[in-house]
Amino acid sequence: MNDSLKIAIAGLGTVGIATLKLLETHKDLIVRRSGRPLVVTAVSARDRRLDRGISLEGFTWHDDPVHMARVAEADVVAELIGGAGYPARAVCETAISCGKHVVTANKALLAHHGVTLARAAEAAPVTLAFEAAVAGGIPIIKALREGLAPNCLSRVYGILNGTCNYILTTMRESGRDFADVLQEAQALGYAEADPSFDIDGIDTAHKLALLTSLAFGTETEMRSVYVEGIRHVSAADISYANELGYRIKLLGIARRTEHGIEQRVHPAMVALSTAIASVDGVLNAVVAEGDSVGRSVYVGRGAGGGPTASAVVADLIDIAAGRSAPTFGVVATALTRSQTTAMAQHRSAFYVRLMVVDKPGVFADVAAALRDEQVSMESVLQRRRDPGEIVPVVMTLHDTEEPAMLRALRRIESLTAVVESPRLIRIECL
Amino acid sequence: MNDSLKIAIAGLGTVGIATLKLLETHKDLIVRRSGRPLVVTAVSARDRRLDRGISLEGFTWHDDPVHMARVAEADVVAELIGGAGYPARAVCETAISCGKHVVTANKALLAHHGVTLARAAEAAPVTLAFEAAVAGGIPIIKALREGLAPNCLSRVYGILNGTCNYILTTMRESGRDFADVLQEAQALGYAEADPSFDIDGIDTAHKLALLTSLAFGTETEMRSVYVEGIRHVSAADISYANELGYRIKLLGIARRTEHGIEQRVHPAMVALSTAIASVDGVLNAVVAEGDSVGRSVYVGRGAGGGPTASAVVADLIDIAAGRSAPTFGVVATALTRSQTTAMAQHRSAFYVRLMVVDKPGVFADVAAALRDEQVSMESVLQRRRDPGEIVPVVMTLHDTEEPAMLRALRRIESLTAVVESPRLIRIECL
Repeated sequence: MNDSLKIAIAGLGTVGIATLKLLETHKDLIVRRSGRPLVVTAVSARDRRLDRGISLEGFTWHDDPVHMARVAEADVVAELIGGAGYPARAVCETAISCGKHVVTANKALLAHHGVTLARAAEAAPVTLAFEAAVAGGIPIIKALREGLAPNCLSRVYGILNGTCNYILTTMRESGRDFADVLQEAQALGYAEADPSFDIDGIDTAHKLALLTSLAFGTETEMRSVYVEGIRHVSAADISYANELGYRIKLLGIARRTEHGIEQRVHPAMVALSTAIASVDGVLNAVVAEGDSVGRSVYVGRGAGGGPTASAVVADLIDIAAGRSAPTFGVVATALTRSQTTAMAQHRSAFYVRLMVVDKPGVFADVAAALRDEQVSMESVLQRRRDPGEIVPVVMTLHDTEEPAMLRALRRIESLTAVVESPRLIRIECL
Repeated sequence: MNDSLKIAIAGLGTVGIATLKLLETHKDLIVRRSGRPLVVTAVSARDRRLDRGISLEGFTWHDDPVHMARVAEADVVAELIGGAGYPARAVCETAISCGKHVVTANKALLAHHGVTLARAAEAAPVTLAFEAAVAGGIPIIKALREGLAPNCLSRVYGILNGTCNYILTTMRESGRDFADVLQEAQALGYAEADPSFDIDGIDTAHKLALLTSLAFGTETEMRSVYVEGIRHVSAADISYANELGYRIKLLGIARRTEHGIEQRVHPAMVALSTAIASVDGVLNAVVAEGDSVGRSVYVGRGAGGGPTASAVVADLIDIAAGRSAPTFGVVATALTRSQTTAMAQHRSAFYVRLMVVDKPGVFADVAAALRDEQVSMESVLQRRRDPGEIVPVVMTLHDTEEPAMLRALRRIESLTAVVESPRLIRIECL
């Protein structure tokens, strides 16, 4: 039997505990797969006295995870604390500087400091692995980094946040509104008490930034990601989407354009016939488009103890078996700066919903504003006729430049018959 | 710059040529991903004079691929000839015995001789990699071998043959019959002149046998795979499936049961709501169900030069980067013998179509036969009433043991009013 791989675990929340349990229950399977035992030697968390439903006997306890990263008798530190700041970042930096491999589930940390950490890891040299940071139930990091390695990718996109997908799915199925469904999701534990990270698209942006670096060999850069969440998606928009043959999904999209790599997170209408339109509930999905493989689609659970722990342990097995790859697929010093593509250069089709006073002539004014910006209409839907009352008017617009669309909308918003800010949702051609 | 990885390519058909082209056109990308250049030094094919649309200058030509495997100045031999016999097998055996790594796209060879070859490779020790053998456009081998490694899998299944999926999809969309669509598929190059390997399920069985070994750590064993192709699927059955809320797909299914690992290839009805029901045309799909990750789904192109070459080169990059794994995920000597589960122990729901003479009392006889075998009916459909004429009767039966179902069918077939062999299609609960 080969020497064991010694592991120190920083953070004993849902993921940390699930990882400990998986390493214990699947010990035999893991040793068959990795060729050597994986043994946890040390653990660290905030409160030693907390009942975690698992015995911590036999592990050296550390109150300070950074200290543990330095002194623990370990080949690998699994950083399962989360957050871009202290102590998670210091745990990873310290482990690397002490020659220990790092496995992390921390998308925020890597999205903000991934390149710096990857360079440090490669200089050490140790492995910095993060399969658990994006869609734990799908080995998408490995797929992009190794499986699709010989492809020049044109686009990577997906549903990367289970909370948002759950909310949007439930809104559609129940016809209920956002605030109501969010509250329920919080009660069920599918959304955090402070849900901003999820519903404002930040979590999706972190994950997208990592997929972008892997797919395009570019430096991770959060500033380049356009981010818009799902707070403004209404039950009405979801119902109109249905009627028009679309689903509304919060997408993260990275695309190679003539101006550079475009990274966007926003609610999008996707045609019912696309592979990801039917990915519902807490499921995640990632689609990668490569010049040799064509389109490949990956669907699975995104979060939760089981899938995340599976990804953490898969990374540990790779390290135990001596398999390593540069953090972002190419050596960190060879990552290129992606020329950011601003949304000013973005083109797409659009869905627009106006609330207007139902009176003759309103639509002529709307049409004139669109015409003057060369925005061409695909369809208009006014279901209700109710002279003098406020009624919804729904339009879809053909592929157009976003700034022109926004200029037209500003003019439409200024019409006296238009009584609310127009709602705009991009229609994504997938 | 590190030393190059030297490659000898055996077989210059569609895949061989696509591999050569990919290595050339994506040279820079590949060296960034692998850390060293991938250089083809030698090639072998049957006919040197054939115009392959690509210059073979600079490669040492060999008429005999086995001789090439022995003498070529190469670190790796890519076996892209195909077939379980000579020369493909000899090429792999020779390369391994000469200390050369082997990358192959050959599912037939590995399904029949995978364990022997894997043992030889591990004894050498060299890498034997075969990502290209199953669903080239999806890195499913790597996902099962590494990405999902810490999972105890309960089931792996999928649509593994693009030709069959294209035929079944076209039959559904056009309402045309099997023979007609097959002929068209042959004309379009989607089916071989001798289509038996594809449409009789053998190709699917080869791929399933490989996925089974990876998923369950068992020795590859073709004899254990129950195989039934799609020749007997009729336009009528496809249309009834639609009406009942199903799609008919040729599935390969491996499942852990109390009796051992069950491996089956047959047409199956799958509910429209399942992830793979909408995987159409030449696309492949694989679903893996693990105890930690839950269900993860992979969809992509299965065959063709591009996807297959991508998988071959991904394996070459892994070798260049020093990443290796046991052929079937665990060392070959540790693979277990899977106790075969015969179809005699299989349970499922069933679809049955009878052609009967429309007269009073027929259905009472059918119902009695089912009752006597304890087969319980879910639904019956007799659309046409045409006294004295032959009409179809379609039934779905609840979950039951296959032998009981078959006994009931034999009795039903012997009824004088039943004028054709009953058609039976398993309904798969996914």
